[in-house]
Amino acid sequence: MRTVFWENNELKMIDQRILPARFEVISYRSHKDVAFAITDMVVRGAPAIGAAAAFGLALAGFESASSSTEGLLADLGAASAVLKASRPTAVNLAWAVDRLMTVARSVTGSADDLRAAVLAEAQKLADEDIEINKRMAEHGAVLIDDGDTIIHHCNTGALATVDWGTALGVIRTAHEQGKHIHVLVDETRPRLQGARLTAWELEQYGIPYEIISDNMSGYFLKTGKAQKVLFGADRVAANGDVANKIGSYMLALAAHDNNVPVYSVVPTSTVDLSLAHGDLIPIEERNTDEVLGIQFHGEPVAPKNAKARNPAFDVTPNRLLSGIVTENGVVYPPFDINLPKFVR
Amino acid sequence: MRTVFWENNELKMIDQRILPARFEVISYRSHKDVAFAITDMVVRGAPAIGAAAAFGLALAGFESASSSTEGLLADLGAASAVLKASRPTAVNLAWAVDRLMTVARSVTGSADDLRAAVLAEAQKLADEDIEINKRMAEHGAVLIDDGDTIIHHCNTGALATVDWGTALGVIRTAHEQGKHIHVLVDETRPRLQGARLTAWELEQYGIPYEIISDNMSGYFLKTGKAQKVLFGADRVAANGDVANKIGSYMLALAAHDNNVPVYSVVPTSTVDLSLAHGDLIPIEERNTDEVLGIQFHGEPVAPKNAKARNPAFDVTPNRLLSGIVTENGVVYPPFDINLPKFVR
Repeated sequence: MRTVFWENNELKMIDQRILPARFEVISYRSHKDVAFAITDMVVRGAPAIGAAAAFGLALAGFESASSSTEGLLADLGAASAVLKASRPTAVNLAWAVDRLMTVARSVTGSADDLRAAVLAEAQKLADEDIEINKRMAEHGAVLIDDGDTIIHHCNTGALATVDWGTALGVIRTAHEQGKHIHVLVDETRPRLQGARLTAWELEQYGIPYEIISDNMSGYFLKTGKAQKVLFGADRVAANGDVANKIGSYMLALAAHDNNVPVYSVVPTSTVDLSLAHGDLIPIEERNTDEVLGIQFHGEPVAPKNAKARNPAFDVTPNRLLSGIVTENGVVYPPFDINLPKFVR
Repeated sequence: MRTVFWENNELKMIDQRILPARFEVISYRSHKDVAFAITDMVVRGAPAIGAAAAFGLALAGFESASSSTEGLLADLGAASAVLKASRPTAVNLAWAVDRLMTVARSVTGSADDLRAAVLAEAQKLADEDIEINKRMAEHGAVLIDDGDTIIHHCNTGALATVDWGTALGVIRTAHEQGKHIHVLVDETRPRLQGARLTAWELEQYGIPYEIISDNMSGYFLKTGKAQKVLFGADRVAANGDVANKIGSYMLALAAHDNNVPVYSVVPTSTVDLSLAHGDLIPIEERNTDEVLGIQFHGEPVAPKNAKARNPAFDVTPNRLLSGIVTENGVVYPPFDINLPKFVR
């Protein structure tokens, strides 16, 4: 089953807020509900929210009462703005919406032709995502050695994409190639996508893993227990600086300090050549309930009325990366020279 | 109120497992119960467990039925072994027990004189801990500037000591000197001593703070939002390598990468000159329930039967430290030359 898919004139998505405790699929008929689902992280992962936004725009087409293409394009434009505003950091969201709008504007025909074209393009984008992930995984799996212990941050698997995954897709493919791999799964505070989602996926793939808290990866790297670090990305700047889930920067620092290679695995739709470097990438700061809302021994973890901060991403500077794995091959330093060549 | 204190022939300790939800004091009459309390982290923090072990040995004296000093010394020797085995990393535990045993062996008098001498020495050690903390805090507060935002890891306050604190003691003293300080409190997975204990203490001292998950400190350091990093230590090797709560190494790396000073604040009883460098420090690996046992949205955070790892400490190499604050002054690099001069 895909994480994000179209069925019976509805967008359906696996509810990633409640895994692994419960597996539920939610149906959407309104682009505003899709935007809220992205904000609330029913769906997360840069490629998955790109596909969700694409289908969200298709829904907006069917929601529109307009019988003229002009009116419909105006409604789609308004829906684009709503969808793009749902989360700021992952560029795939804007990339997907812009791609569909370009198709929408090129349609010559009726409003219903336009609606159909937008849906078809969303479906094409989703299908392509899987194919792109498989190509990334093939390129990335070459970098993985038999016997590797890999530290993985956040979730970058089937749940973060339409299917297969980016960094976790590399691990899956290497595993299917017969390589023996052990994964140290960063739990990934505050929303615990590693402990909840990546561990759940690895169980299904039969890949051995152990969950660690994020602050433990330095220990395993320094004591020689991990040979690779893999994560995805939410936006890559033109020079190869990578915005990814909070904690990626510290993980990359610890790997670099111990000469362990770090790879970011991303579709080129995650590369934003309009930004010269990573400090220009907008970083979302989310509700602090995500930090304060866990329980320890069944009790709240902080004093009542405690304040917190919750930046959702950080930027790993290109100097800490050994390579960026894309569907078009592995990009090596100097990234500012090489990365643009891989974005077609 | 002290964190660890003697009253009515009993050792009393604040139960740090259940703060901030509940404040309870537990009484102990047996050294084995004290050893278990240390293992189970009723009491934690290197100086506090040193004092707890000292009073635990005093209890062992009263538990012993021996009327001869020889028999009593044998019982105390057995109790020493039990207490020392309760946790492996913090050297204060062995330091305190050894100090009391040296006193015990020097007593010329009856078995009851010996019992009284051991208790008196435990009381003296506890009293000295507070005085030492105050001296450390004075030395350390000089390093803090008005307006500093300080990232602090784990708990190093009154709860980690008999009273006042080590790194948090520095923050308290700087605050009392009128300096305006903001603390970014690492929640400190897996046991959340930062979110639970440090935030609770800071509330009482009226020092403004925000809780962050451990993997966020890199973001705040890289964006220029923090000017100092402070933590304690569980054991310092002769060359200034510091074993401290898991995550300290990654925090120090992130500070170093952004030219933010890092200070470890420790009594010299935490320095182990017998170990040439930090890789020789034994690192405790604890029960993985500590990693897997939190709840998110009231649900378990990992798949049933998920495996995990739980190293409780890591080693920050001396090259990442700007200074080590002791009761005898601030030690600066080269630590291998300078640190031994401060240990009297």
